[in-house]
Amino acid sequence: MSDIAILVVEDEPLILLDLETALQEAGFLVVGVPNAEAAVEAFDEDPSKFAGRLTDIRLGSGESGWEIARHVRRGNSSLPVVYISGDSADLWGSEGVPDSVMIVKPFFLPQIITALSTLLNQQHPTAANGGEPSH
Amino acid sequence: MSDIAILVVEDEPLILLDLETALQEAGFLVVGVPNAEAAVEAFDEDPSKFAGRLTDIRLGSGESGWEIARHVRRGNSSLPVVYISGDSADLWGSEGVPDSVMIVKPFFLPQIITALSTLLNQQHPTAANGGEPSH
Amino acid sequence: MSDIAILVVEDEPLILLDLETALQEAGFLVVGVPNAEAAVEAFDEDPSKFAGRLTDIRLGSGESGWEIARHVRRGNSSLPVVYISGDSADLWGSEGVPDSVMIVKPFFLPQIITALSTLLNQQHPTAANGGEPSH
Amino acid sequence: MSDIAILVVEDEPLILLDLETALQEAGFLVVGVPNAEAAVEAFDEDPSKFAGRLTDIRLGSGESGWEIARHVRRGNSSLPVVYISGDSADLWGSEGVPDSVMIVKPFFLPQIITALSTLLNQQHPTAANGGEPSH
Amino acid sequence: MSDIAILVVEDEPLILLDLETALQEAGFLVVGVPNAEAAVEAFDEDPSKFAGRLTDIRLGSGESGWEIARHVRRGNSSLPVVYISGDSADLWGSEGVPDSVMIVKPFFLPQIITALSTLLNQQHPTAANGGEPSH
Amino acid sequence: MSDIAILVVEDEPLILLDLETALQEAGFLVVGVPNAEAAVEAFDEDPSKFAGRLTDIRLGSGESGWEIARHVRRGNSSLPVVYISGDSADLWGSEGVPDSVMIVKPFFLPQIITALSTLLNQQHPTAANGGEPSH
Repeated sequence: MSDIAILVVEDEPLILLDLETALQEAGFLVVGVPNAEAAVEAFDEDPSKFAGRLTDIRLGSGESGWEIARHVRRGNSSLPVVYISGDSADLWGSEGVPDSVMIVKPFFLPQIITALSTLLNQQHPTAANGGEPSH
Repeated sequence: MSDIAILVVEDEPLILLDLETALQEAGFLVVGVPNAEAAVEAFDEDPSKFAGRLTDIRLGSGESGWEIARHVRRGNSSLPVVYISGDSADLWGSEGVPDSVMIVKPFFLPQIITALSTLLNQQHPTAANGGEPSH
Repeated sequence: MSDIAILVVEDEPLILLDLETALQEAGFLVVGVPNAEAAVEAFDEDPSKFAGRLTDIRLGSGESGWEIARHVRRGNSSLPVVYISGDSADLWGSEGVPDSVMIVKPFFLPQIITALSTLLNQQHPTAANGGEPSH
Repeated sequence: MSDIAILVVEDEPLILLDLETALQEAGFLVVGVPNAEAAVEAFDEDPSKFAGRLTDIRLGSGESGWEIARHVRRGNSSLPVVYISGDSADLWGSEGVPDSVMIVKPFFLPQIITALSTLLNQQHPTAANGGEPSH
Repeated sequence: MSDIAILVVEDEPLILLDLETALQEAGFLVVGVPNAEAAVEAFDEDPSKFAGRLTDIRLGSGESGWEIARHVRRGNSSLPVVYISGDSADLWGSEGVPDSVMIVKPFFLPQIITALSTLLNQQHPTAANGGEPSH
Repeated sequence: MSDIAILVVEDEPLILLDLETALQEAGFLVVGVPNAEAAVEAFDEDPSKFAGRLTDIRLGSGESGWEIARHVRRGNSSLPVVYISGDSADLWGSEGVPDSVMIVKPFFLPQIITALSTLLNQQHPTAANGGEPSH
């Protein structure tokens, strides 16, 4: 029913697989990437493809999830952003972007589905849609 | 666990089937109708049966989803209302009812489940229940 | 992905089983107990184990769900609390705790999943996590 | 500090004077009009002048406050709208516009100031401003 | 413009005077009482007179602000309740009522005005008004 | 009634004076500073003195309001932050901090009072208070 996707950024392959599987089973289309460089590249190639972003904070040697979030928000100032983290969660108040959700590890998978859905539903009608005709 | 249902109004049979299937798998009871006339008739026959309403905006030749929403809200002023639309979404600010959710096409199915659940949970306890005894 | 659980308190065995099954299928870990005494005992044994609580109001001869909620909030002042009830729902305004959700019977199971997920996501990062290292 | 104003629509001269005085003392610029015709004319002449609208529901023989609100929202889909009414308040659920506030008579004047301020602050940055340079 | 009032409960005469003055200057009608007994008596004599309640937690030898709040909510399940306290504030999560505001000392007076106004504006239209005719 | 203050950062002396006067008349204690350097110095000298921060974005040659906000949030992760700006407002989605308010120029002074009061009232009781005894 849609050609839009959620960009999932997670450097641990098994956790990335878990997140992709859970989101797909719930009904989301997902593009998973393992690091910040791939996340920025995927987003910049086609910003209109991504309806939201889910990201771990620590991503190995490159940029952190905080920086990727600011990058994508410069391209789309109201794009839904969900962070997941353990020990970086208390930095959300200073490093996070407005109207984002911080999910603290350990967490339950439905929290992610509800966080993404709620942020998607709060977007202003005109902002979330390029105006393509449909019923 | 309930004898209440969500009224789903959608004039495209395949999309209606998708919506009905997704809502039922999530745990909702659903009554699907293909146009405004059937929607109003189903609602007026037993208003207390419906705990919420999900509607497309454009519904062929009859009334639009905007008008059906106002009709059901005149019968139950806090009934959860979720609209789905593509090109009519920017009219939500002038044609929608208060405390409703506009989901813009293209969308993901969990957005609808979260929108309905959130609106149902926000209802005032005394308003959502006819007072039938239960534990 | 987590060693935390939702404490579910319900004195009717069949409804308890329904709730446990629905929450587990959605991705929650669940500890179900049949009465207030068992609920308080389970919580006091390891308060940090429980990320949230779902409770019926009427629980046979012991304490009610209102009292259990106050008990667990004295141990963790921001623990997510979801009540389900039928005829006691109108007492929520005087007997419930702040930032809780009252789900009125009859209800749909996704309402519970959304209520728990939303409350979990609204917790302050520092409050929801004991600080264990993770990515 | 601003050349924008709140449009106040009220057909009883003494109440209109009360509202104008209270809003001006609080720090708002106000344009008061006594009926629907004057409200629509003032708005259509310069839609960008008005940052919000406060309206009574019953306005004598012309259009009601419900219709004026839909009219201004067709010109600016996120314009803050605050209704005040006594016996028409229960129609808000079917006749009101989304993200509006219904203030029920009798009321206290700070409710109006808080309602307008809260709605103005919730607007998306890009929507509320024509982009004129300032610090 | 109204015959309704805010019930203010505070056992320190100078603070009570400050609160009464600030609320009256802002546009509220106020009934101030120095202890729990007088608060309950004033409320029970004419529950429909009070549109909201502001209370200190510690009130000398009688009942606390927590108990008064539950008492008035049993009479009106959605009455706006604002607590002010210093060292009792961390008990709000277990002892407060839903949809109330806890203002922590030290505080600024506009916090109280905004808290009361916001809660009054969030009430459902039909709940806040006895239906007396007005424009 | 309090020894806490709002830190106001604005490089135009006349606007700073307007903001200080309006906040003081409303009941706030205010410390006004003309640039980023003075803002950081005042905050670092006594972080517990400041209950909230109001800042212009462009502040001459030094750091911007975005950077000051991140600085103070690193010291107090839930400190209320209100930004005012004209042409920088559309950067709030990428440069702002979570749970902050962006007020777009031109604006009305009550918007600032409501924004600060609302953020102060939303803080968790235990976070907003150092625990000093009071009634």
